[in-house]
Amino acid sequence: MASAPVSAEDSLIARYFKPIATDPGAFDLDDDAAALKMPGGDIVVTTDAIVEGVHYLPDDPPDTVARKALRVNLSDLAAKGATPAGFVLTLALRAADDSWLKPFAQALGQDAVLFNCPLLGGDTVATPGPLMISITAFGRVPAGKMVHRSGARPGDRVVVTGTIGDAALGLDILKGGIGAGALAGDAGARAMLIGRYRVPQPRTALADAVRDHAHAAIDVSDGLAGDLAKLCAASGVSAAIDAPGIPLSPAAAELVARGAVGLETLVSAGDDYEILCAIPEGRFEVFAQAAERASVAVTSIGTVIAGTAIPSFLDARGRELLLTRRSFSHF
Amino acid sequence: MASAPVSAEDSLIARYFKPIATDPGAFDLDDDAAALKMPGGDIVVTTDAIVEGVHYLPDDPPDTVARKALRVNLSDLAAKGATPAGFVLTLALRAADDSWLKPFAQALGQDAVLFNCPLLGGDTVATPGPLMISITAFGRVPAGKMVHRSGARPGDRVVVTGTIGDAALGLDILKGGIGAGALAGDAGARAMLIGRYRVPQPRTALADAVRDHAHAAIDVSDGLAGDLAKLCAASGVSAAIDAPGIPLSPAAAELVARGAVGLETLVSAGDDYEILCAIPEGRFEVFAQAAERASVAVTSIGTVIAGTAIPSFLDARGRELLLTRRSFSHF
Repeated sequence: MASAPVSAEDSLIARYFKPIATDPGAFDLDDDAAALKMPGGDIVVTTDAIVEGVHYLPDDPPDTVARKALRVNLSDLAAKGATPAGFVLTLALRAADDSWLKPFAQALGQDAVLFNCPLLGGDTVATPGPLMISITAFGRVPAGKMVHRSGARPGDRVVVTGTIGDAALGLDILKGGIGAGALAGDAGARAMLIGRYRVPQPRTALADAVRDHAHAAIDVSDGLAGDLAKLCAASGVSAAIDAPGIPLSPAAAELVARGAVGLETLVSAGDDYEILCAIPEGRFEVFAQAAERASVAVTSIGTVIAGTAIPSFLDARGRELLLTRRSFSHF
Repeated sequence: MASAPVSAEDSLIARYFKPIATDPGAFDLDDDAAALKMPGGDIVVTTDAIVEGVHYLPDDPPDTVARKALRVNLSDLAAKGATPAGFVLTLALRAADDSWLKPFAQALGQDAVLFNCPLLGGDTVATPGPLMISITAFGRVPAGKMVHRSGARPGDRVVVTGTIGDAALGLDILKGGIGAGALAGDAGARAMLIGRYRVPQPRTALADAVRDHAHAAIDVSDGLAGDLAKLCAASGVSAAIDAPGIPLSPAAAELVARGAVGLETLVSAGDDYEILCAIPEGRFEVFAQAAERASVAVTSIGTVIAGTAIPSFLDARGRELLLTRRSFSHF
């Protein structure tokens, strides 16, 4: 019956930066984005950095690195119900390498057009360390309409977009892990999973529906179990998840069925970039219809319940999955 | 008669990122900030990162590192005529070191209050490389009122705030260079110059006056000569600078008088974080009065002239200073 798990990273932020983030628009740093109030509406601001060797592999193609750097931020905007408005880029490079920068910039430009999120400015600095791409992205919402982590209520459905765990399997394949061997004969599945790791699919098309219907939302970037725990903690609730109902891709489902990977690993791994939200029962139908119009798959995976227990993931027989590590933390 | 000097960094940006920054608010990446249009006014957005060992020394006190990280961005906002509205922070750390983070966060919080620029959010990532602090800061201006690098016209006065070259001397002292020996007996002067390197003084108080009166403005971060050349290039003009009229602190003036350092070095060095602007002759008087009310020293150092030549810096006898390196570039 412990309260939500707190990573060393969360605790660092809580200890040092919460006390100085006193502006109401900072939401006590408890959310994935901030709001900058303007007379005509709010600007939702989110910032996420990716580091070579930490968030992507040194030999990932530069075009996928560019797309990932922007899309992890677009995923945050979508979960907050915001429409992309633009972004700024900070690039820390060891050297100006044309063969890397050219495809990087081209892909970034293509994604800026695709998601209607223009590059507004940036900074380029030299570093002797690993390459780092830090993006701050802006979105628009009507005044006060940003969707928060807090707000989920007992009885709400827990809903997630897309499929869970593919990116973790893709990373595992790239590192030559268990997935590589288990899928040795299926090049298509391998490519799909690697693609899910390298190029997230931000659910931008669902932002309006999330804003219209969700009591609370978060983007799943550090693992479904951990991010659900964060949403529940911020909302002062708990949740019961029907683990077999968690949406998996055919490739992931096959690996689970064969025992090559456990479901508990997939729900604790990072890089999904799906939206997890709490939808009131009475609005689920219309939310699901809006999602269908937006061509985004949504799955109801459980129920918000009263209490402050860590959310439970129950198997087909009602037994709780043992989650030793619920989410990714940097420190 | 060459056009403005272009650094490798500028050329990298021009080659790869200008073509994808097609939104009008990006100003072709030719300025220090972007504008995000909102119904009630514009949000000016600027982003600047500082890297350990590049922009500050590894043993600089953490409180000064925090202040520098925020203030280099506040300096950009001031030069654009914008009132601070908030900032987000990305911190790339090797480890969560309490003895460093505590004074860092405290000083950052103090500066957020001092400059009325609240911390809104951020991201913390692990890196095996040098520590890096990337800040994106926001400011408010009335719609369309951001002050640009372009807009200077022949006949305008070239005006600079504060004093030039102190920070470069401070860095030189910290590195045990020429300034250290020349000022061995003057601890007060040494401390002042080191302070100017470690803790910039953004001219936030002058933002309104710059917005009301300047045709063009830029913050002097990469060297007066280079930043003036950028302002002139963006405006399609040139300038004639009266080098002996460039404002120097008593310590810097003494080092120049003794021949310990050349004026050409001081006008080519970085980290001044002063505002350089073009003020029409007829408004200089009222601008100077506004500056006095804001307690910011301003000095008229020359005149904008027609043409596309690199601005000239003339000594007391009208001979041109030889500037081999006009500004700092990372690549």
